[in-house]
Amino acid sequence: MEQKAKKNNTFAEVGKVLEEAKKILIFTHVQIDGDCLGSATALCRMLRNEGKEAWILMDEEVPGYLSFLETDYCLIHPKENHKELLEGADLCFAVDCSDPGRFETLRDLFLQGPKTLCVDHHSTNVGFADVNYVGRDCAAAAEVVYKLIRSMDKTIDPVMATAIYTGMVTDTGQFQYSATTAETHRIAADLMECGADFLKVSIEVYQSHTMARVLLKGRILSELELFADGKAAMAYVSQALLAELGATMDEVEGVVEELRGIKGVEYAVFLKEINEDTVRVSLRSKEFADVSAIGKQFGGGGHVRASGCTFKGTLGEARTQLKKAVEEQWKALSTC
Amino acid sequence: MEQKAKKNNTFAEVGKVLEEAKKILIFTHVQIDGDCLGSATALCRMLRNEGKEAWILMDEEVPGYLSFLETDYCLIHPKENHKELLEGADLCFAVDCSDPGRFETLRDLFLQGPKTLCVDHHSTNVGFADVNYVGRDCAAAAEVVYKLIRSMDKTIDPVMATAIYTGMVTDTGQFQYSATTAETHRIAADLMECGADFLKVSIEVYQSHTMARVLLKGRILSELELFADGKAAMAYVSQALLAELGATMDEVEGVVEELRGIKGVEYAVFLKEINEDTVRVSLRSKEFADVSAIGKQFGGGGHVRASGCTFKGTLGEARTQLKKAVEEQWKALSTC
Repeated sequence: MEQKAKKNNTFAEVGKVLEEAKKILIFTHVQIDGDCLGSATALCRMLRNEGKEAWILMDEEVPGYLSFLETDYCLIHPKENHKELLEGADLCFAVDCSDPGRFETLRDLFLQGPKTLCVDHHSTNVGFADVNYVGRDCAAAAEVVYKLIRSMDKTIDPVMATAIYTGMVTDTGQFQYSATTAETHRIAADLMECGADFLKVSIEVYQSHTMARVLLKGRILSELELFADGKAAMAYVSQALLAELGATMDEVEGVVEELRGIKGVEYAVFLKEINEDTVRVSLRSKEFADVSAIGKQFGGGGHVRASGCTFKGTLGEARTQLKKAVEEQWKALSTC
Repeated sequence: MEQKAKKNNTFAEVGKVLEEAKKILIFTHVQIDGDCLGSATALCRMLRNEGKEAWILMDEEVPGYLSFLETDYCLIHPKENHKELLEGADLCFAVDCSDPGRFETLRDLFLQGPKTLCVDHHSTNVGFADVNYVGRDCAAAAEVVYKLIRSMDKTIDPVMATAIYTGMVTDTGQFQYSATTAETHRIAADLMECGADFLKVSIEVYQSHTMARVLLKGRILSELELFADGKAAMAYVSQALLAELGATMDEVEGVVEELRGIKGVEYAVFLKEINEDTVRVSLRSKEFADVSAIGKQFGGGGHVRASGCTFKGTLGEARTQLKKAVEEQWKALSTC
């Protein structure tokens, strides 16, 4: 049953909650990305600059390509000391999380918080916290965070500017995705004037690939397949291939965009074998298809042009079922 | 012998030359790119909107990924009717060209013009025309063109906005290259509000790759080599490989950025075998190396972080000599 989205609180209300809190736990989502960690570090720094205690809680290690952010703020896998963490905390603050299912091991901790707050930009967010601000017209959670910080009249120092810029550049695919607006560019301009080191971000995120990654990409792309009248491209990475090349799963970032980049392709599907009965699925569309609907079919979600889900089953099963789901949507679209 | 750069004329002076001209020939450079053609089409449209006769002269066909621009303005390979073209023309206008050597077959025609004008952004431009404006702090020639049009107080219609945006997004590598500034982003924002179809540009330029191109990239990357203590990456494409995969040379766009994207790599060198005694060389640097100096050694030029040259010799000779030139520069840099 779909929940109806709660009405947004105002930035003034969100700001007041943050001003009143003394110890804040910032919650991030699994498969953390540049937008989530960039947003979280900018907020954590703003709160610490105010003399508050603030921490970022994470379910997993910081991926290599984001390790240039302020990772000292991050507490990783904090399950064993949940009780200690909550002691004295007056606010649990979720960033870039569309629902509590995005927390995995941190879910219960969030819901036990004396007060909960959520700042996000996903259209599927229904407002699961006590106080919520979902900027559905924003290209990135970091864009919402920028506007929040500006509305609170706090200084954006170079470290915060770099973190916010990281969220924006990664979630807009270097200002290329359809959600990008004139305002996105104006915010990028302001962040550069606040001292955002955009070149460092570019080098760390987009120009620090290992040789293994380059080889991996070659192998994955050489085995891609087209289906649904050439409107869909699918590729996959198995644990066996990672082992063969000495590569890790975070080295496949960007492959789904390569698939979408093929002429005539509307749907891009990329499958990552996490283990023998779990496959992480990334979905992208180019111009008109709604891949969030396909993500939802398998318990996931996201945006119209970029979504994902976690498939329970083997890689072979995921290939068959995702292909079927895309073919069905394409058939419905092309015959109506 | 190096020529000293002439002092820039003002936008007011450039604008006056354009206002006074009735028939304008716009000159583009060989190996035309998105910045040159985007700038040229925006200017051609502005001049035609004023009721003037204006044409874009090109040495070669419009590459497929730029065919969405206003190619009706373009006259291709016009060598045989040079005299006719010049008849009644009162201005030869070079765009994004650092020197007349960038015109090839069009060189003489340009220099025969009754009046010559050049608008560019390359730091190596010495001001070879009668009237010159070189925006050395601009990330793209299109950025200079935007400022010129604004200074002339002309309307930027959606077609012009899309063309200028194309120049900016391609010459900044999606706003990632070091020359990108806060102003670049503000101009992008304004262009989006003028109706630039940035999504169309993104799809045509970055998401319309053929399958052959994807396979080609895989093959090229799988044969890349590192040298100069892992600080340099080199790859190449031969005519034989193109023939084998049924691909064309314009399908290797972007490979040099993949090379630069490897961790630790400062120099990226990509060699394109044009024929058995001509190799087109693309050079990129990441953070500190000056590849325009290497380009110059072989009669080319460009920017500190992105340059190129045309090597006279075989692919094998180009590999040896470029490797030597890079190694020498790296040795000098790392020992000083």
